[in-house]
Amino acid sequence: KVIWTVFVTILGYASSLPVGEDALCTAEELAKYRIIFTGKWSQTAFPKQYPLYRPPAQWSSLLGVTHSSDYSMWKKNEYASNGVRDFAEKGEAWALMKEIEEAGEKIQSVHGIFSAPAISSGTGQTSTELEAHPRHPLVSFVVRIVPSPDWFVGIDSLNLCEGDHWMEEVSVDLFPYDAGTDSGFTFSSPNFATIPQDTVTEITCSSPSHPANSFYYPKLKILPPIAQVTMVKIKKTQLGLSAPFINLPAKSNEIIDTVS
Amino acid sequence: KVIWTVFVTILGYASSLPVGEDALCTAEELAKYRIIFTGKWSQTAFPKQYPLYRPPAQWSSLLGVTHSSDYSMWKKNEYASNGVRDFAEKGEAWALMKEIEEAGEKIQSVHGIFSAPAISSGTGQTSTELEAHPRHPLVSFVVRIVPSPDWFVGIDSLNLCEGDHWMEEVSVDLFPYDAGTDSGFTFSSPNFATIPQDTVTEITCSSPSHPANSFYYPKLKILPPIAQVTMVKIKKTQLGLSAPFINLPAKSNEIIDTVS
Repeated sequence: KVIWTVFVTILGYASSLPVGEDALCTAEELAKYRIIFTGKWSQTAFPKQYPLYRPPAQWSSLLGVTHSSDYSMWKKNEYASNGVRDFAEKGEAWALMKEIEEAGEKIQSVHGIFSAPAISSGTGQTSTELEAHPRHPLVSFVVRIVPSPDWFVGIDSLNLCEGDHWMEEVSVDLFPYDAGTDSGFTFSSPNFATIPQDTVTEITCSSPSHPANSFYYPKLKILPPIAQVTMVKIKKTQLGLSAPFINLPAKSNEIIDTVS
Repeated sequence: KVIWTVFVTILGYASSLPVGEDALCTAEELAKYRIIFTGKWSQTAFPKQYPLYRPPAQWSSLLGVTHSSDYSMWKKNEYASNGVRDFAEKGEAWALMKEIEEAGEKIQSVHGIFSAPAISSGTGQTSTELEAHPRHPLVSFVVRIVPSPDWFVGIDSLNLCEGDHWMEEVSVDLFPYDAGTDSGFTFSSPNFATIPQDTVTEITCSSPSHPANSFYYPKLKILPPIAQVTMVKIKKTQLGLSAPFINLPAKSNEIIDTVS
């Protein structure tokens, strides 16, 4: 098996095709995962300018996709697509869904799209299912931070496949990103387009380095995670015999993160 | 086939099992549908108190389920569940998702859950896929009207199956409902719990019969539809060969509804 894997890699490079980490997925079946997104945006963890009214701190719908390395939903230090801009600025998903659809049609780089309902507070949870394919084992998603100028959290091209099998479970801490399309500095800044558009950047406790920024905590080394995502492989079940979405975790009312 | 269908019906009654319209679905396969939700909540069609700021008129995430007649997500003139109350008042989906999950586990009355992203304006579109099963051919969903006290639009137990086949396409105009849990009269009313809780009621141009109500248009006979939903059966495709969500309609920027 090792030899064969190496062969595939060499062949990939030799033929000048784009080769990504997903080229190595030799799992033979589709994989279904439950994805659980947990907001950790509490006033305790993020006291600065924490939005309490109209609207209070909350999370948009989650929009995600399973894909190959030929597609990218968003990437740090690259320019956001128009779809990602609409989603990050307004939570408007349509343009992004169309972009994904076109990537699926034109270059077959997409397996499926998934979405989970919005969360009406900073610290709730939401969940849905996703399906990955050996040729489309990467998962990406975005969730808009509400309110914010164009800030979001998400995952870019996480590979759910490891060689010939699918990962059982993966959890990732999430940190805020700026889509580079709106120059607002604080959660409730009025709209102010960034022209020319900037690239997607991670927002840290020291960058943007300006006291007015909502995430500027000069005494911290790193921000606490503002959210977390867990993907758990679902055991295969006979269709219709059991609901495909069983085992939602009990809602945690005590998500504790403190700024130390 | 006719005789057999009648037999099933009689057997159902004779054995005193709950018999719903779905008991007659003799289709042999699962059916996949694309569901497209179109908001028609424009200032032209609904000029009264149309919300323009903080937040402007918009739609929550769509949360839906395919199920048998043993489950009901919501029903006109009956009391809303706690999950529907949370969703209609705040757009918070978790409790409703848990209710659906429990119905799936305990009485196997549910096939699957689906959600579509929120729409950031009154007149946009959103879309996702759903899967129905011959034993779970009914579809229900809710979308919260934002802002509003506890108002929503939705479908209750629409049967996608007709005898031995699945419907090719179905479109339904949607009108606003009051979940009966908050006594606010206008889109932007402050929270004011209805105690005791009232049943789910349709909001019409004359009911509630009070000039302060946001949908009170005494000169109209009926309200224009505030939204529309279309479900289109998806041709079966080989897994992974084509994206399962192709053919999103182009976004209509000209949804015209006028109050006559």
